[in-house]
Amino acid sequence: DGEVFEKAGVNVSVVFGLLSEEAARQMRSRGKSLKAKDGKLPFCAMGVSSVIHPKNPHVPTMHFNYRYFEIEEADGTKQWWFGGGTDLTPTYLNEEDAVHFHKTLKEACDKHDLKLYPKYKKWCDDYFYIKHRDERRGIGGIFFDDVDSPSKEEVFQFVKSCAKAVVPCYIPIVKRHCHDSFTPEEKQWQQLRRGRYVEFNLVYDRGTKFGLLTPGSRIESILMSLPLTARWEYMHTPPESSKEAEILEVLRNPKDWVH
Amino acid sequence: DGEVFEKAGVNVSVVFGLLSEEAARQMRSRGKSLKAKDGKLPFCAMGVSSVIHPKNPHVPTMHFNYRYFEIEEADGTKQWWFGGGTDLTPTYLNEEDAVHFHKTLKEACDKHDLKLYPKYKKWCDDYFYIKHRDERRGIGGIFFDDVDSPSKEEVFQFVKSCAKAVVPCYIPIVKRHCHDSFTPEEKQWQQLRRGRYVEFNLVYDRGTKFGLLTPGSRIESILMSLPLTARWEYMHTPPESSKEAEILEVLRNPKDWVH
Repeated sequence: DGEVFEKAGVNVSVVFGLLSEEAARQMRSRGKSLKAKDGKLPFCAMGVSSVIHPKNPHVPTMHFNYRYFEIEEADGTKQWWFGGGTDLTPTYLNEEDAVHFHKTLKEACDKHDLKLYPKYKKWCDDYFYIKHRDERRGIGGIFFDDVDSPSKEEVFQFVKSCAKAVVPCYIPIVKRHCHDSFTPEEKQWQQLRRGRYVEFNLVYDRGTKFGLLTPGSRIESILMSLPLTARWEYMHTPPESSKEAEILEVLRNPKDWVH
Repeated sequence: DGEVFEKAGVNVSVVFGLLSEEAARQMRSRGKSLKAKDGKLPFCAMGVSSVIHPKNPHVPTMHFNYRYFEIEEADGTKQWWFGGGTDLTPTYLNEEDAVHFHKTLKEACDKHDLKLYPKYKKWCDDYFYIKHRDERRGIGGIFFDDVDSPSKEEVFQFVKSCAKAVVPCYIPIVKRHCHDSFTPEEKQWQQLRRGRYVEFNLVYDRGTKFGLLTPGSRIESILMSLPLTARWEYMHTPPESSKEAEILEVLRNPKDWVH
């Protein structure tokens, strides 16, 4: 609970052990079945993730996560893959910020393969979808999982580029708006949007579900992503053509911010 | 957002249509498999439920739900059952209130069968369990599902007795405490407990999951149960022997309030 950030955290985790088949199913987005020995799969996972919820409703929430997994099958074969992404959740839409954020991520992707940004941008919009609201959690960014080609070294270089883009894609936005003035009504809209953030993370997020299913996992780290405070009002609908309706429109119909 | 209640709602619902097999599986706690015709099951459900989140942290949150289901199988057989319950979620423990609440529910059950209260009290403690926290949502009450014996009429009479007990088990507690004074710290502890309420409802509650899976369901009604506001702090642990630690102890180790 600081001057600029209301709640922010960084998780670095390195875990290994035996996975139950149920937990293993949660791990791979393609749901590829893995041949287990006695129903248990030795695995090793490492990652870094962060969620930053700022105080000021004109500064968006940002989340990133980059991770590496390895699972050993019954016959000794090792499956490995990378996953990750960076995404932005504004309370109010600022087009300039959205373009800057996506452009910075696109540049990081383009250094490796021009096909990556469009693919991972769409994957991000699809992943952060709150089905029961027909809204995305935010204005997206990039998201990928199960990436195991062309080679471990090349994927690692790509993931490094993405990770290096985190600061330049987000910090300029924070600096630009952290002293913006705001009204109590704007703060309240932020709190309602934080409620949606909670809904996504607890109902849909695969990482959270995986964590809650893993015996002995560190709950405080898993739920670090939740905002400090959130709000739910019955039947809240912003007036047409308001700033609140503007962001909702973009969450319902994701836009291409860069071409 | 009133004088005594911060957020309170009553849902009355009568729904019918065709269930997907996935949704049907969520419906029965025993997970009994139902023979569907072309993967679809005609069903009819009705129920009344309510959640009351008071302003004052010395007045507990109360929830009840009473419902009736009917499903038609491929061969035309109709399966029917009742479910429901009433439970209390205090921010601070008041033993006298806990005893009054459970005693009133026990009396309603005892009129029908002395075995019901102990069985449904335990079922309630087991159902409202937040596994990842190793805590119950509250101090329980009664909970039952899939009840289809001894006869439809007898179960209906039992459910009516439970429903009639809602007001006498809760309203005296509201009256006793709604003018209690409270500190900002007590309000904050209430907000942290509300966060746990959200966790239970979004991660575990079968009714919520069933609603989110039902196409065309009314999201605002389903999520009416969420509090107006909630709070999550990283690594919050109340000091030993505090009033906050006292309620946590009871949430971790449910007590028998009446014998």
